[in-house]
Amino acid sequence: MSTLTTRAQDYAQWYNDLILKGGLADYSAVRGCMVIKPYGFGLWENMRDQLDRMFKETGHQNAYFPLFIPKSFLSKEAAHVEGFAKECAVVTHYRLKNDPNGSGVIVDPEARLEEELIVRPTSETIIWSTYKNWIQSYRDLPLLINQWANVVRWEMRTRLFLRTTEFLWQEGHTAHATREEAVEEAQKMLDVYARFAEEYMALPVVRGVKTPLERFAGAEDTYCIEALMQDGKALQAGTSHFLGQNFAKAFDVKFLDRNNSIEYVWATSWGVSTRLIGALVMAHSDDKGLVLPPKIAPLQVVIVPIFSKDEAIRESIQAKGKELVKTLQKLGVKAKFDDDDSTRPGWKFAEYELQGVPLRITLGARDFAQNLAELARRDTGEKQNVSFDRMEDVIVQTLDAIQQNLFQRALEYREAHTTPVDTWDDFVHTLDEKGGFVAAHWDGTSETEEKIKELTKATIRCIPLNNPQEEGKCILTGKPSSQRVLFARAY
Amino acid sequence: MSTLTTRAQDYAQWYNDLILKGGLADYSAVRGCMVIKPYGFGLWENMRDQLDRMFKETGHQNAYFPLFIPKSFLSKEAAHVEGFAKECAVVTHYRLKNDPNGSGVIVDPEARLEEELIVRPTSETIIWSTYKNWIQSYRDLPLLINQWANVVRWEMRTRLFLRTTEFLWQEGHTAHATREEAVEEAQKMLDVYARFAEEYMALPVVRGVKTPLERFAGAEDTYCIEALMQDGKALQAGTSHFLGQNFAKAFDVKFLDRNNSIEYVWATSWGVSTRLIGALVMAHSDDKGLVLPPKIAPLQVVIVPIFSKDEAIRESIQAKGKELVKTLQKLGVKAKFDDDDSTRPGWKFAEYELQGVPLRITLGARDFAQNLAELARRDTGEKQNVSFDRMEDVIVQTLDAIQQNLFQRALEYREAHTTPVDTWDDFVHTLDEKGGFVAAHWDGTSETEEKIKELTKATIRCIPLNNPQEEGKCILTGKPSSQRVLFARAY
Repeated sequence: MSTLTTRAQDYAQWYNDLILKGGLADYSAVRGCMVIKPYGFGLWENMRDQLDRMFKETGHQNAYFPLFIPKSFLSKEAAHVEGFAKECAVVTHYRLKNDPNGSGVIVDPEARLEEELIVRPTSETIIWSTYKNWIQSYRDLPLLINQWANVVRWEMRTRLFLRTTEFLWQEGHTAHATREEAVEEAQKMLDVYARFAEEYMALPVVRGVKTPLERFAGAEDTYCIEALMQDGKALQAGTSHFLGQNFAKAFDVKFLDRNNSIEYVWATSWGVSTRLIGALVMAHSDDKGLVLPPKIAPLQVVIVPIFSKDEAIRESIQAKGKELVKTLQKLGVKAKFDDDDSTRPGWKFAEYELQGVPLRITLGARDFAQNLAELARRDTGEKQNVSFDRMEDVIVQTLDAIQQNLFQRALEYREAHTTPVDTWDDFVHTLDEKGGFVAAHWDGTSETEEKIKELTKATIRCIPLNNPQEEGKCILTGKPSSQRVLFARAY
Repeated sequence: MSTLTTRAQDYAQWYNDLILKGGLADYSAVRGCMVIKPYGFGLWENMRDQLDRMFKETGHQNAYFPLFIPKSFLSKEAAHVEGFAKECAVVTHYRLKNDPNGSGVIVDPEARLEEELIVRPTSETIIWSTYKNWIQSYRDLPLLINQWANVVRWEMRTRLFLRTTEFLWQEGHTAHATREEAVEEAQKMLDVYARFAEEYMALPVVRGVKTPLERFAGAEDTYCIEALMQDGKALQAGTSHFLGQNFAKAFDVKFLDRNNSIEYVWATSWGVSTRLIGALVMAHSDDKGLVLPPKIAPLQVVIVPIFSKDEAIRESIQAKGKELVKTLQKLGVKAKFDDDDSTRPGWKFAEYELQGVPLRITLGARDFAQNLAELARRDTGEKQNVSFDRMEDVIVQTLDAIQQNLFQRALEYREAHTTPVDTWDDFVHTLDEKGGFVAAHWDGTSETEEKIKELTKATIRCIPLNNPQEEGKCILTGKPSSQRVLFARAY
């Protein structure tokens, strides 16, 4: 096994090493697109399935809309076209033919589309063009639909999971009879995202709202959850948009309300993507490899035997390992007994550490003779000998303890890296030397926000929900401000 | 509720009515692409989840490969390019810009890709270009990977679910050290498909192998399952390909075998798609609407109250309905109590019949007073009064009976519509008057097969596995033949 770059050496390279060597993803032959490998996809499946349960519990259903969007649709909503039309894959032809001058194939110039099709960068336009046919009266509302899909945004600089040309995501698109209901939905889904991030990914997040400059193209309000990575940079982990009546107006979606008057429909959309896997890796992992929260780890417990030369002991270790896996599986614990004898235990230890398996159990002959096995925690490295009499209980409790510890550790890091500052010098100094969230006063204008970004590369990540109000002066302009907002350099 | 076209009136229109009015899918703004509505997607989720379980039970893992394929990849495998390059969506540009002459957007001519990208029609090429990096030694084999994805084939004539430009599917792509192992894998997955079709979709299928003419482009053998629809036409419900070393050679994927020699890798691929939903609809449904097999129905039991004016009775019916739903859900039965009083019971009856809900329970005041409720089966229309004392048992048993009956009915239809014929006149007459599978002798040449297709529009659906061998003469040429093959007109 090759050595990993450490965080201190090169954080970006450490991240790439973990993704590639940990078996989560690989580069592909297509610029900016990645291959999600089985181990990484197993992680995504666990995240997806849990989110899907939470969406269904809150009354949503899944559906599927076309991959392609007619070019003209993108320009129907004024703000939306500015945000998306610039960075998309365009289908212009529908056939290839044999190259008359060679052995390969060429695009058939006769098979040109009348109107070009855009590979969806997001689906508001195609979905609202459909909702027009589905919504006539208040009885058809609310419409609570989610889609799991691939989307394409033509990014110039890509990074595995964090920013890829194609990525997987879910996008909820809901339609409501009133503004209040739509706002409530957008906030409810933000809460679902926050609970998912904190309870399953062990990732503490700040719930907030974006400034107008950072809003989704076409939204009236963009709610977000923001997380902090170990290098002090912030990462937007999910967004939920209150879209007002913008898309209803763009696609002429009206309904007959309870008072018999015709109104435009109110909308939300919300999404999280495979980017969350990047956040997960950067929040918890260490210089030995990935560290995965037990609740979403594809493999929670690995059992590694250290075989003795004595055949009888070998057989009883073998039997014990298999039995323990079965018992754990019955308890809903994802466990594997790795008795492949073509690799040595030490190699396996390093490999499972790299893969971030939360708990390792070593079955060695000497411990085994005393009815014991060694448990090693991936998060802390702690080891303890545990009697087989209480093995299952200890495993279940320890998995829970690891989940809690990862959250607590990340929370403490965030708290230690959230710094209120009141002067421009402190602001710049904190960003440069310490990183993390900087809580500072801002005069509320996009102009100042852009200027600060230009000077420091820091953006306003969000205005936290339930933000305490206090008098203050803008960090840059000195103009009056009524609350602190969270600045950070971000992914 | 609008009336449905009957099968006798217009089979194709009956099918479309069921898909659209039954709430499975809708047309979209993009030519040839459909929207899968929540009810249809719920059905697909149940099918997908069951297939996914069966794939995992047979040792496969999911992964995800890019949507786009570099144009040159399609021409690397000689047969493959002929089969696929002709009908695909081609991405030529990666940016739009504001139209300087108007208000819309145009394709930015400066953002032309050096090499065009093809939206995957199937993923052998991009996946085998990746496997090259993953496979070095026999230790890396077998590689058993599946992908759930959307694919695009530019079809000239499209039909909801049966043939759409974009569709959802799974594609398994496996790599093996020996020919025998790969053939075994292809056959094993055909068996998984057949079991899924028969046990879950209640759809009897013939397991067979395709003739060279009908083979997948790039395969050495294509195994298939073929089903019969109620109009006597056949439908290919799934295929599993033994690809030999064709893709390994095209993408130079070699491995070091146990004897230390370098060999090309052996491959399979196999897939089923949302087309299965079309098969399901056409196999079981009737003139009243959809008929769905309980094992994959999104809703298995609907409980409809007929409220009395007496408030006390009304309340006890209400309480009973809610209680019954809870009890059923605990038993794993998907049940709903529809107490919406804005629609009348008769309207609900027709609506749930249209949607193909397997079992309806009516809670009427008179029956209720006698501790009874009426059960109505969707498949047979049979009704019976059932005491609440044994309600859950009867429901579970009846769902099982419906599942069995649908399969049995479809099997009897297929047996009655599989006709051995020995003369050309009988062959043509049977195809025209009776339809179904026609079992006839064929001389084994592609020439004859094409001629028969030209004359009758019938194709060889498959050579059944374990086909009995018998002496005979080709139906068209009179040349000697050793077995009958199944001809049919097909979707």
